Amino acid sequence: MSHPKAVFRTVGAILLMLGFSMLLSVLVSLVYGDGDSIGILIAAGCTVLIGALGLWHGRGAAELSTRDGFAVVTLGWLAMSACGALPFLFSGAITSPTDAFFESASGFTTTGASILTDIESMPHGVLFWRSFTHWVGGMGIIVFSIAILPFLGVGGMQMFKAESPGPTADKLTPRIRDTAEILWGVYVLITAVEILLLRFGGMPWFDSACHAFGTLATGGFSTKNASIGHYTSPYIHYVITVFMFIAGVNFSLHYHALRGRLKQYWRSPEFRFYLGVVLASILVLFALRLFYTHPGSAKTGLERAFREAAFQTVAISTTTGYATADFELWHPLAQLLLVVLMLMGGMAGSTGGGLKAMRVQILIKQARVELHKLIHPETFYPIRLGRKALSGDIVANVLAFFLLYVLLTIFGTMAMALLGLDHVTSLTAVIASLSNIGPGLGAVGPTDNYAAIPTLGKWVLSFLMIIGRLEIYTVLVLVTRTYWAK
Amino acid sequence: MSHPKAVFRTVGAILLMLGFSMLLSVLVSLVYGDGDSIGILIAAGCTVLIGALGLWHGRGAAELSTRDGFAVVTLGWLAMSACGALPFLFSGAITSPTDAFFESASGFTTTGASILTDIESMPHGVLFWRSFTHWVGGMGIIVFSIAILPFLGVGGMQMFKAESPGPTADKLTPRIRDTAEILWGVYVLITAVEILLLRFGGMPWFDSACHAFGTLATGGFSTKNASIGHYTSPYIHYVITVFMFIAGVNFSLHYHALRGRLKQYWRSPEFRFYLGVVLASILVLFALRLFYTHPGSAKTGLERAFREAAFQTVAISTTTGYATADFELWHPLAQLLLVVLMLMGGMAGSTGGGLKAMRVQILIKQARVELHKLIHPETFYPIRLGRKALSGDIVANVLAFFLLYVLLTIFGTMAMALLGLDHVTSLTAVIASLSNIGPGLGAVGPTDNYAAIPTLGKWVLSFLMIIGRLEIYTVLVLVTRTYWAK
Repeated sequence: MSHPKAVFRTVGAILLMLGFSMLLSVLVSLVYGDGDSIGILIAAGCTVLIGALGLWHGRGAAELSTRDGFAVVTLGWLAMSACGALPFLFSGAITSPTDAFFESASGFTTTGASILTDIESMPHGVLFWRSFTHWVGGMGIIVFSIAILPFLGVGGMQMFKAESPGPTADKLTPRIRDTAEILWGVYVLITAVEILLLRFGGMPWFDSACHAFGTLATGGFSTKNASIGHYTSPYIHYVITVFMFIAGVNFSLHYHALRGRLKQYWRSPEFRFYLGVVLASILVLFALRLFYTHPGSAKTGLERAFREAAFQTVAISTTTGYATADFELWHPLAQLLLVVLMLMGGMAGSTGGGLKAMRVQILIKQARVELHKLIHPETFYPIRLGRKALSGDIVANVLAFFLLYVLLTIFGTMAMALLGLDHVTSLTAVIASLSNIGPGLGAVGPTDNYAAIPTLGKWVLSFLMIIGRLEIYTVLVLVTRTYWAK
Repeated sequence: MSHPKAVFRTVGAILLMLGFSMLLSVLVSLVYGDGDSIGILIAAGCTVLIGALGLWHGRGAAELSTRDGFAVVTLGWLAMSACGALPFLFSGAITSPTDAFFESASGFTTTGASILTDIESMPHGVLFWRSFTHWVGGMGIIVFSIAILPFLGVGGMQMFKAESPGPTADKLTPRIRDTAEILWGVYVLITAVEILLLRFGGMPWFDSACHAFGTLATGGFSTKNASIGHYTSPYIHYVITVFMFIAGVNFSLHYHALRGRLKQYWRSPEFRFYLGVVLASILVLFALRLFYTHPGSAKTGLERAFREAAFQTVAISTTTGYATADFELWHPLAQLLLVVLMLMGGMAGSTGGGLKAMRVQILIKQARVELHKLIHPETFYPIRLGRKALSGDIVANVLAFFLLYVLLTIFGTMAMALLGLDHVTSLTAVIASLSNIGPGLGAVGPTDNYAAIPTLGKWVLSFLMIIGRLEIYTVLVLVTRTYWAK
């Protein structure tokens, strides 16, 4: 870190905005009069104060260097998670600081794992804040992945250096600001359309907004105990399915589409791959759903089987984590396929988590190239995405990203096992956190929640969410000696 | 493949030797008079006949090219597994061809997974053959990994090109023959020492030989239903622990040691790493064993806890799979640690399976280098093993090897889940097969066996054993179009 003061200034500015945005939840709580207004207001005040302190501390500091980017993003997400926990605590909705931090980190990382056991008993202002953390986190991640990551050189994202909309400036800050404005416009617009469509389907305004926040951020927090399964309307299920898919697509492509360049979707090799995987998975899950009925559960009709297969595939593959069905009652292969989709996640530049479709594409191509190399060791086989040939550096970077992902999964699972959790719960809770999905299998399955995880486990999972959300490298680089060397 | 006839000739020669080696089991069966002599004799005759046919078909063929190596090794192991199943079938000891192939493939790949439910009821000749398949497979794998793999360029093993003992010839065949003779001498010697030490501990000659075969090959077949747990003597447990560890070490190092160059062990960075991991794991398992008692199981004494921890750590990390305790009753973290050790396996050039210690070392170093690169993208960080700097090609090759390993695990697990097996059983059965260990967790745990796996599942696991044993690439390259192109 070369300019610690500049880092504090930037994180301070982020918190200042976050504090003011809490006033929206105060407004909602005043409308419903559930008695949580004062608590959220105090939280907003504290957050603004902390933000102002950071700004004051960093006054007159130099500009941010690229290297500072790692610290800003990591500290920013940590600080947002910490301050975002205050409304839960001060309103009395969540009494344990661990639980409040977990819920807040889960919100800002758009994971959607929850420790709440009875969501519907929560006051409206708190529920609104909970879903709003998703939306803010989603905004952050779009800018992070499209405007910041390519310059940090993390996990193959440098190949997108020239592709983000907005001016190509040399300075990081103005470039990020312009790109952010453009992308947030797209994000707000799509969110508004989904709110209207959900309202049109009979969902109240409050729930429409909260669910649209959860959808666009691929978060997964719902205002209902039964998640989207609360609603019986197939229309609502289909609307959310479509918007979850949209949220899993690179937002640069949506920007181009909105400017009339619809062909950009099809021109993206990552989009074609992502669409193909999602459609194929829907088909497989649909078939498994038709031919396999779990002992004790009723047979489902054709339309419902298709709807549930489509909803669950998109909900998991985009790492949203909404549920309309208990997939733990599905065929074991269906469950495993969902776990594999979790690992992949959405496209790079979307709000989705996981490894990202692009990286999975590169990994598969690399595996094939290595086989060819055995026969012709002297031949150079470039890896192409569309017309673009990737440099060996980018491929190595992606391979190492995958490696770190697996190592973190192994160590995380061992940590959870140390706390006495069973294998399936340990493994899938770690994957669900690191990939920012929400539900896993076992004790953290789609109909369960994270309330029963031991305190230490909640902290481990919270940090895994943040590490996963920031593409691993961004956080891990901060614990190397090289980073802190002059 | 450039010389199919030469491939047939070589595989034929292997089968011919295998057929004659079956006569040893006929001899054993005659001594004990269990009535299995005729069956094994017929099997030997069939194998010799098939081998002779192969030799005859390939008469006058050109010499083998390097590319043919892939086909020889893969076909060789498949043919050995098929012919090795005949003694089981013809003696009537195993009636299902699927089961017989599974047991034979498990033997030659030194996996040690068994479909037998009552081992002690088997005739002696058959049990001897079963353990002998381990020993032959272990012999094969030492030569494969030290003399053949480096020239095929598979998964980083090319870095050992100059290191195998024996003359440095240009032609593959004489070089392999000389290296094989040297290494087999070492292998036979160590086996003989273990047989004597076990006999000295009161184990009958028959069981001493069979268990020494299973140890040196890191196989795991026992002649007792309770595996090594059958014996109460701590001496026997410690002897087998030490020899399992020896079998997990690169046999080139043993060769140097026998010629008086004992320091070679310590000079090998892979050996130091392997020893460190094993010792650390023993300590952790020992501690977990002391402080955690599974509900319903008795508390263990200090010596026994240490002995079980040491035995089980070495048995799993070398991928032998012998058992003196039911580790499914151990702390969940202990179980997971064992699964991680399974993934690593022994050293390159040993009879152990898994990823190999050297590859794990390279993967960890690569992950660290990528973090440093984020800070100094222009700096070149070489990866070193000891004093040797590895080329980027070797590192990429190891990364891709790891990738293929994970992909095969995912697809294998999905295939097992399709057959209706639960998650833990599916995942650990696949890992246990691909890493050539034997026992997994769940329905294939240390006190269970593979008898209840569906027929199709047994075939999938058998092929995974062979793919894993031959370092993945060697088999997969045969299904590429490039391999068959002129």
